[in-house]
Amino acid sequence: MSRDFLQTQPGYVSTALHQSIAPDAKFMLVNIAVWESAEAFKAASAKMMQTAGIAPVDGLKFTPGLYTVIVTD
Amino acid sequence: MSRDFLQTQPGYVSTALHQSIAPDAKFMLVNIAVWESAEAFKAASAKMMQTAGIAPVDGLKFTPGLYTVIVTD
Repeated sequence: MSRDFLQTQPGYVSTALHQSIAPDAKFMLVNIAVWESAEAFKAASAKMMQTAGIAPVDGLKFTPGLYTVIVTD
Repeated sequence: MSRDFLQTQPGYVSTALHQSIAPDAKFMLVNIAVWESAEAFKAASAKMMQTAGIAPVDGLKFTPGLYTVIVTD
């Protein structure tokens, strides 16, 4: 599984997989992975694609994005 | 601002506003608000709509969802 690989890579901090409470949400699963930097994530992703790749899952569509936290309270 | 109201309500835990690093992301802003329960959030939201409401912002489209964390590592 890709998570098993990614969490061994430099810069990995944590992952939290969120499941929608409503059964008809636009996004049923939201995975929030925290990395020390965008560069660390990109390096780990590139390495994963070179080695194992990502097996497609029927009916699963991804909307990935890289974010930085700008406000917390 | 709606955040100022919400953080005074019972069950509010925290908020983290995320901004996309890429300028052309499908979602430019992702706000992750943590509440003690879905019920606490729904009660606070209902109260906010009754009192102040939410002022629309030109060009801003919301895709809200309620999630529960199912896996962490």
